Amino acid sequence: VMKLSAIGELGLIERIRELVPRPTQAILGIGDDCAVLRPTAGRDLLVTTDVLVEQVDFTQEATSPFRLGRKAMAASLSDIAAMGGRPCAALVTLALRQDLETEFIDELYRGLQHEGSKHGVEIIGGDISASSTLMIGVTVLGEAESRRAVTRAGAKPGERVWVTGRLGGSAAGLAALQAGFRLRNDQVEGPLEATGELAEAIREALERHLCPSPRIREGLALAAAGIASSMIDVSDGLAADVAKLCRESGVSTRIREDRIPVDPVASIIGDLLGQDAMAMALGGGEDFELLFSSPADADDIVRLFANGRAVTEVGEVTAPGEGCVLIQRSGATVPLSGGHDHFRRP
Amino acid sequence: VMKLSAIGELGLIERIRELVPRPTQAILGIGDDCAVLRPTAGRDLLVTTDVLVEQVDFTQEATSPFRLGRKAMAASLSDIAAMGGRPCAALVTLALRQDLETEFIDELYRGLQHEGSKHGVEIIGGDISASSTLMIGVTVLGEAESRRAVTRAGAKPGERVWVTGRLGGSAAGLAALQAGFRLRNDQVEGPLEATGELAEAIREALERHLCPSPRIREGLALAAAGIASSMIDVSDGLAADVAKLCRESGVSTRIREDRIPVDPVASIIGDLLGQDAMAMALGGGEDFELLFSSPADADDIVRLFANGRAVTEVGEVTAPGEGCVLIQRSGATVPLSGGHDHFRRP
Repeated sequence: VMKLSAIGELGLIERIRELVPRPTQAILGIGDDCAVLRPTAGRDLLVTTDVLVEQVDFTQEATSPFRLGRKAMAASLSDIAAMGGRPCAALVTLALRQDLETEFIDELYRGLQHEGSKHGVEIIGGDISASSTLMIGVTVLGEAESRRAVTRAGAKPGERVWVTGRLGGSAAGLAALQAGFRLRNDQVEGPLEATGELAEAIREALERHLCPSPRIREGLALAAAGIASSMIDVSDGLAADVAKLCRESGVSTRIREDRIPVDPVASIIGDLLGQDAMAMALGGGEDFELLFSSPADADDIVRLFANGRAVTEVGEVTAPGEGCVLIQRSGATVPLSGGHDHFRRP
Repeated sequence: VMKLSAIGELGLIERIRELVPRPTQAILGIGDDCAVLRPTAGRDLLVTTDVLVEQVDFTQEATSPFRLGRKAMAASLSDIAAMGGRPCAALVTLALRQDLETEFIDELYRGLQHEGSKHGVEIIGGDISASSTLMIGVTVLGEAESRRAVTRAGAKPGERVWVTGRLGGSAAGLAALQAGFRLRNDQVEGPLEATGELAEAIREALERHLCPSPRIREGLALAAAGIASSMIDVSDGLAADVAKLCRESGVSTRIREDRIPVDPVASIIGDLLGQDAMAMALGGGEDFELLFSSPADADDIVRLFANGRAVTEVGEVTAPGEGCVLIQRSGATVPLSGGHDHFRRP
């Protein structure tokens, strides 16, 4: 067991260089003052950055360095997906305690690398500092066909609002963590012996929360079809992200509760823990599904997702003054609220 | 006085959007999932990221949020300078305590903005998380003429090694901070009443440390002239940065102590505090001057810096096996050592 204080900053950088394959697309990777890329002529360049902070966005006790690396990469990739872009390169910023073991770094990079390479991303640089609080920041660069990147601004009244996949799975995983369940070597451990469907639901929810998947393929398909008028990824919860999309588009929305694709694992874990699965679906963040508006026919959209991924019409875009509302199952109309805020105190 | 917990994450993002001018070069700035840029055809894209961590890279007590913003931007810009690139856009990642005052953010962004706009940089995005440790990460994108970016690999035996400006000023400023001197409203305060030349030297050293200047113009001039075979910025101290350049180039160097351009303020503060100015120049980081190798005649290099900035030949590139050495004033040859490491413990 070796600590970072033993190998030093230069030793650490050398170790990372060995963990990361030499770039094949980028001209210059780790080891210089800057990374160098040759952008594809005629394409627009996308860039985004996301940071995970210990005790706020994760705890070391509840995840593994491999999963943490995957999640840090996935969170940034999801922003590229939300523009309909193709990711290509990443820079990783680490703030690390001096007593951290080198194996942590090996596993973290294995995770970053695993998630990145699935989507054609090369790690080409970054920065390291010491810190009492562990922090992992990932900047991702990507490309989009000229003028085809899908922004948050573009939704128009009368269009329909859609969401990919199912919602609430990540929130269910967080609830399971808070209840004491853990994934150890892909097995569920926890305060009660879970078997069968329940064990499987807990495992799946924990995976959704600890190892989310960015919807790169879905975003690319939507951008290529020119079918989405606006798009955002569901990172802070459907309610919060709908509000952001509406704000940038200058519109309102009416979401129908009976159309929300609640993840079955959220229902199972909600039942187990006495929590509301719909609240997880509406307010829980980090599902990293894509929320988009479209004037297209439902058939055209469903056909685009013929690979089997779910896509669900959840509501419609309304006029600016109407506000973002939820039509409840009872028929009552209430303000759409909930979602994650890093700073606001309850 | 308002705290971040009162305005929340969305309120904070709105505030930052108001502090940052709308981009004129980038197509899409703050407020979407990604920023969007249209790269100049035929140019290479440079990207770099740098993070400053509280208690490790700075303390709030010893600087101001305005200066902190300037330094965070300058540190990343310096990496673009070291490639001979032209910076164009920046993303800012913040990890912030919830009890931080909104005025801190205003001043921090004023500093980021001030330093960036001097060099044509637009702030186009970023990310925010809560954290018990304050952290500021800046990713900068820049451009270089195709194949003209100057890397660390390219120095050849027989070439001369040069450095811009003067060294040790930042280390002298750090020593002054550690001795209790502070800048308050541009005035020096501290453990002794300093007047005249001494007060001026302390003020200048503190400025060098708290508000360094990236050598963008000098880097661009070197790249345009095609005169530098390799280049690095002096961020971890001359000795450490020479070693990095040699490693990437697969060469050694012989540096002459009598040629090191020691900053006069380092000599004055060294005398005051009983510290060695040469050690500051060789081992102190964050001067952010440019160190480069060149086969060109001294006259050609000096002519390139006709605007009055100092440029000094400090040694020569030698064969791989010879090691990085310092020829001391006495004529003795010793290993070149010193410099900053975030992890290694003394």
